[in-house]
Amino acid sequence: MTDRTIGVGMVGYAFMGRVHSQAWRNVTAFFDLPVTPAMRVICGRSEKAAEAAAARMGWAGFTTDWRELIRRDDVQIVDVCTPGDSHAEIAIAALEAGKHVLCEKPLANTVAEAERMAEAAALATGRSMVGFNYRRVPALALARRMVAAGELGEIRHVRAVYLQDWIMDPELPLVWRLRKDKAGSGALGDIGAHIIDVAQFVSGQDIVGVSGLTETFIKERPGGRVTVDDAALFIGRMSGGATASFEATRLAGGRKNALRIELNGSLGSLSFDFEAMNELWVSKGGGGFTRVLVTEPEHPYAGAWWPPGHGLGYEHTFTHEIKDFLEAIGNGTDPSPSFADGLRVQRVLEAVERSDGAYTEIL
Amino acid sequence: MTDRTIGVGMVGYAFMGRVHSQAWRNVTAFFDLPVTPAMRVICGRSEKAAEAAAARMGWAGFTTDWRELIRRDDVQIVDVCTPGDSHAEIAIAALEAGKHVLCEKPLANTVAEAERMAEAAALATGRSMVGFNYRRVPALALARRMVAAGELGEIRHVRAVYLQDWIMDPELPLVWRLRKDKAGSGALGDIGAHIIDVAQFVSGQDIVGVSGLTETFIKERPGGRVTVDDAALFIGRMSGGATASFEATRLAGGRKNALRIELNGSLGSLSFDFEAMNELWVSKGGGGFTRVLVTEPEHPYAGAWWPPGHGLGYEHTFTHEIKDFLEAIGNGTDPSPSFADGLRVQRVLEAVERSDGAYTEIL
Amino acid sequence: MTDRTIGVGMVGYAFMGRVHSQAWRNVTAFFDLPVTPAMRVICGRSEKAAEAAAARMGWAGFTTDWRELIRRDDVQIVDVCTPGDSHAEIAIAALEAGKHVLCEKPLANTVAEAERMAEAAALATGRSMVGFNYRRVPALALARRMVAAGELGEIRHVRAVYLQDWIMDPELPLVWRLRKDKAGSGALGDIGAHIIDVAQFVSGQDIVGVSGLTETFIKERPGGRVTVDDAALFIGRMSGGATASFEATRLAGGRKNALRIELNGSLGSLSFDFEAMNELWVSKGGGGFTRVLVTEPEHPYAGAWWPPGHGLGYEHTFTHEIKDFLEAIGNGTDPSPSFADGLRVQRVLEAVERSDGAYTEIL
Amino acid sequence: MTDRTIGVGMVGYAFMGRVHSQAWRNVTAFFDLPVTPAMRVICGRSEKAAEAAAARMGWAGFTTDWRELIRRDDVQIVDVCTPGDSHAEIAIAALEAGKHVLCEKPLANTVAEAERMAEAAALATGRSMVGFNYRRVPALALARRMVAAGELGEIRHVRAVYLQDWIMDPELPLVWRLRKDKAGSGALGDIGAHIIDVAQFVSGQDIVGVSGLTETFIKERPGGRVTVDDAALFIGRMSGGATASFEATRLAGGRKNALRIELNGSLGSLSFDFEAMNELWVSKGGGGFTRVLVTEPEHPYAGAWWPPGHGLGYEHTFTHEIKDFLEAIGNGTDPSPSFADGLRVQRVLEAVERSDGAYTEIL
Repeated sequence: MTDRTIGVGMVGYAFMGRVHSQAWRNVTAFFDLPVTPAMRVICGRSEKAAEAAAARMGWAGFTTDWRELIRRDDVQIVDVCTPGDSHAEIAIAALEAGKHVLCEKPLANTVAEAERMAEAAALATGRSMVGFNYRRVPALALARRMVAAGELGEIRHVRAVYLQDWIMDPELPLVWRLRKDKAGSGALGDIGAHIIDVAQFVSGQDIVGVSGLTETFIKERPGGRVTVDDAALFIGRMSGGATASFEATRLAGGRKNALRIELNGSLGSLSFDFEAMNELWVSKGGGGFTRVLVTEPEHPYAGAWWPPGHGLGYEHTFTHEIKDFLEAIGNGTDPSPSFADGLRVQRVLEAVERSDGAYTEIL
Repeated sequence: MTDRTIGVGMVGYAFMGRVHSQAWRNVTAFFDLPVTPAMRVICGRSEKAAEAAAARMGWAGFTTDWRELIRRDDVQIVDVCTPGDSHAEIAIAALEAGKHVLCEKPLANTVAEAERMAEAAALATGRSMVGFNYRRVPALALARRMVAAGELGEIRHVRAVYLQDWIMDPELPLVWRLRKDKAGSGALGDIGAHIIDVAQFVSGQDIVGVSGLTETFIKERPGGRVTVDDAALFIGRMSGGATASFEATRLAGGRKNALRIELNGSLGSLSFDFEAMNELWVSKGGGGFTRVLVTEPEHPYAGAWWPPGHGLGYEHTFTHEIKDFLEAIGNGTDPSPSFADGLRVQRVLEAVERSDGAYTEIL
Repeated sequence: MTDRTIGVGMVGYAFMGRVHSQAWRNVTAFFDLPVTPAMRVICGRSEKAAEAAAARMGWAGFTTDWRELIRRDDVQIVDVCTPGDSHAEIAIAALEAGKHVLCEKPLANTVAEAERMAEAAALATGRSMVGFNYRRVPALALARRMVAAGELGEIRHVRAVYLQDWIMDPELPLVWRLRKDKAGSGALGDIGAHIIDVAQFVSGQDIVGVSGLTETFIKERPGGRVTVDDAALFIGRMSGGATASFEATRLAGGRKNALRIELNGSLGSLSFDFEAMNELWVSKGGGGFTRVLVTEPEHPYAGAWWPPGHGLGYEHTFTHEIKDFLEAIGNGTDPSPSFADGLRVQRVLEAVERSDGAYTEIL
Repeated sequence: MTDRTIGVGMVGYAFMGRVHSQAWRNVTAFFDLPVTPAMRVICGRSEKAAEAAAARMGWAGFTTDWRELIRRDDVQIVDVCTPGDSHAEIAIAALEAGKHVLCEKPLANTVAEAERMAEAAALATGRSMVGFNYRRVPALALARRMVAAGELGEIRHVRAVYLQDWIMDPELPLVWRLRKDKAGSGALGDIGAHIIDVAQFVSGQDIVGVSGLTETFIKERPGGRVTVDDAALFIGRMSGGATASFEATRLAGGRKNALRIELNGSLGSLSFDFEAMNELWVSKGGGGFTRVLVTEPEHPYAGAWWPPGHGLGYEHTFTHEIKDFLEAIGNGTDPSPSFADGLRVQRVLEAVERSDGAYTEIL
């Protein structure tokens, strides 16, 4: 079994680092994989925090230098869990060192960075993947399967919102996600990116043009001026002819993590809300919506876990993501979503940002 | 009591005629009103059908000539329930004859017509009102009350959709609602008009600019070419600074009459779906949403009907509309929404139609 | 048309009187009936109140003497809407006078009274019906149709609750519904009777034995001692082998009119809650539950009203009840539920009351 | 840190073994504990399967002899995950050997066994706990906290159902859960036990008497005669005066794991359904029900995991259970629910089984 072991190094130990660690630690207990990950090293800026994180989350070692992590011979996979402003530098260096790279979303803070990353990925010997974890919600994977099988017919409408409320309190200080230099954008890049990816993934259509608006309602916070959007919304057209409507906001009081998507096709409709993540609502031929608990053995990913009705949680989406990534590496195929997919999302984000209400095509 | 009687004549006996009749026939059994309507005469193009409608719906007489209806001395109120292409002519004639006019929505098929109607209303001695009945859903009237009282703080987001699926079957023939010459527009004017009115009513903010798209997916039907939109969607900005997102479609399989609106304010949120019309969902200060059954004695309109939990239906919105109209007439005040309000909705509809993705201001 | 007219007299003008009047006034506008009701006379104890009720609700005359009402030649139908303690006397007198009788539920306050009523009905020339209006909710009529057609297979479980909270406030005074001499029993007879009827109606099985408990939590109220149950619950067996579970309470805080029933059969399940009365939830073969909006033309009663998705309210159940009653009279058939059915419900209520936890068979 | 390490041995590697393993493997990554579990050894009847389970689930060793597991000096905790017929023998042996014991529910297959286990626990130096994991659903732990704080006032009604449908197919063979010799009872002991425990836990009241019924609808299956109940239902009284209603069935088509409980108190109500396990519905003072997403930092257990709205799954209930067990061991307190609590549940189960409709007191 030793020869199938593949070493993993992770950069970042905050929220994303914790949930990725959980996935790396558990994936082999539930899925039969062609390679077996070994959690070699975690990297963080503070030595003390990195050491504690390694111990707690199950990493064999730690470092404060991501370049050192990349240089290690026993690390074949680099998992980039840092804020967006450092994605390009780390991911490109890792790819150039021949590593496989899993990079958190959004791929980068700018289109220019994302382009360089996609180029590096295209040239690299390692596999690369961007971490749009919501594709791996079983209900959304099932939605994709149904659309791909033609069960909904021609998709005509896609509408998606991602509603949170964690910045509703004006006394919340200026955390990094509210600073353009660190986060690139606000709700748009943080959560809007997720619904763009999910919408394109499930519908099988690309967004080809948008009219967008962004707004910052709370302009000053303890710590300084907010330099990103609080909310972004746009409508547009998709490559298969569907209309699309999107909204991302962190000021929707009472909505905690409401990633919602609804598709209407010529034969049926689908509806999903992450706040009830184990459910997919399906309508065929104009009939009422059926609440499908996506926990049956034949549903994507679900068979590896518990009996029907014994639902999964947020963290499992990452376990599934890493399972798919490891399978692609082991089988010598390209994982999805690729850096090119991530770049495409980045182009949509940029188009929304500069639209200011005008229709803007995505190249 | 005789001196308080006010004669009513209604033009049109189809869907809207039926539900208006139901409201006229029952309003006095539940509400104490300053005037008492007498159902004098109904007008329709076919003599036989008009006679049958009069008998069935409780009108004392019938006619096939709406001008004759307007000329009658014992008719003080004219209720216009025809398709949009005849609204202007009938309503203006009635106003000029000194009648009170209740006109179904949308006010007209074009801004030009609506302008003439609003002018006539401004000059008239009679009262006038446009029939945006959904304002009179108790839950939406309660929503308006809460927003007006400041319970949600500053409204930042308004998102509304109106989803139906009754034209999903491509074999559905070219009924009048699918012809531009009769209906003016498709989903946009028919159901989009409702969510525009409801959004402005509940939020207390006007839509001041939009970027919109429309689409016709099923271009040919038995009977000819479809000349209106199947779906329309737009984003925009509102006078109080809120962002707005709207979508109207009749191709959302499984959605029968899903008029939905959600508002997010600095202090709380509201959510409503007409398919569960007796419920208003309320969140305060970021807490969970509370399902309020809007059937309590203190809720708008509800106290006149049945005990808590014994819900109302679609037709009651018209009974409430007519109750408010009669109160305004009896009390000598201007009913709401006025023809000027209807004109404003018309301007939004037109802006969406000509936007083609570009940001378009509403004058 | 005159020869088809049938005169109606109604005894009682409170809550039930109001909603029955609404049904009598509107039924012919929506349904084609073999006979046409004429609202002749209403009877109440107070002359002033009876006169006002007649005027408001559309009755041609009024009286304070129900015997006089029964004697009138132009009254062929007597509608009994009084509290349960006077049902037997009025209904039997009306039947003996050759009238058709619609009697509110529960049929009587005791089994002895109900037996006398059922006997009178069996001997009478007039038709008789007991007012279990919830059978006429379109969703429950559809449920019955599905069970009768075998779509659920053999029914194995019936569980029903009827939850209200209007006596939760201990300061609520001792209204007649809290007095055994007027109401017969508390939650049991008032709302428990409804779920017994609905369960038997939908499942097509009779309750054949019960183990029941009753409880009075608030024993003293302004006005005196509470002499009825606040809550009643029982389990039992049904004639087709199903298990049954029932609970009726007026102390379920937050539940306003939650008449709920769920059936599980060998092929599928149904679920209903009156607080969302236009919805029936259906599961086939272990699949997820589908939310059926029971507003389609092919659904029971619904086609007479509005387009799909434009829901009905509480009062429509009475309109449907009276429609069915008038059809039975006009067609010379026996309406359902009969007084014998009402007696059977009464026997179940009595068995629950005397069970005190012990299994009690229903004869 | 070494001195705080505590060795764990687990008996059983099927469904419960897998989910317990997941909990043991992850608990320290999320909770700060006074002792640190080391996964020493897993025991199963088949050597090959035990070895594979050890490798996959993270156990250092394996054995086919549970007595050997108990004898090991480096094992201080014995986790019993076998079917109910072997609980007593293994747990008592482990307790007598001075081990701490976590035993899956139901505690035993008979009251006699459970009594011996509770006696052994009372005499033992080790700590003991029975695995009613649903107490550790954050929403139910929050429910308990609210009731204990008096937020609902006096609890008057408890109603709970546990609905599944996995034996609906008559071709499902006679698995061990359908055999009385292995499982003790059917739906009653398997899932009915859970709602008994949850109801008593949340309400803070014990069940003191029951009237119960059980039924086996599918009497023969491939493999032989079914010797346990398919469904069990009972009503009863609780120590604080509440009425109680319970139903457990595996024949509720479309319900996968619907553990539901609703409580009504003098001040408010709570409602929960495990199929939406991250939600608790709360009503205060007769107001509407609020959907609380139990994922906030201040909610039980939730703060250790992900941000608000990023829900948990089934397996986390076990992680919480083991966290509480380890804390009790480390802090020298008695974990809950105790074997005495498990015995009490067993007495209720037995009372239901022998009730046959008659009221039966629980001693």
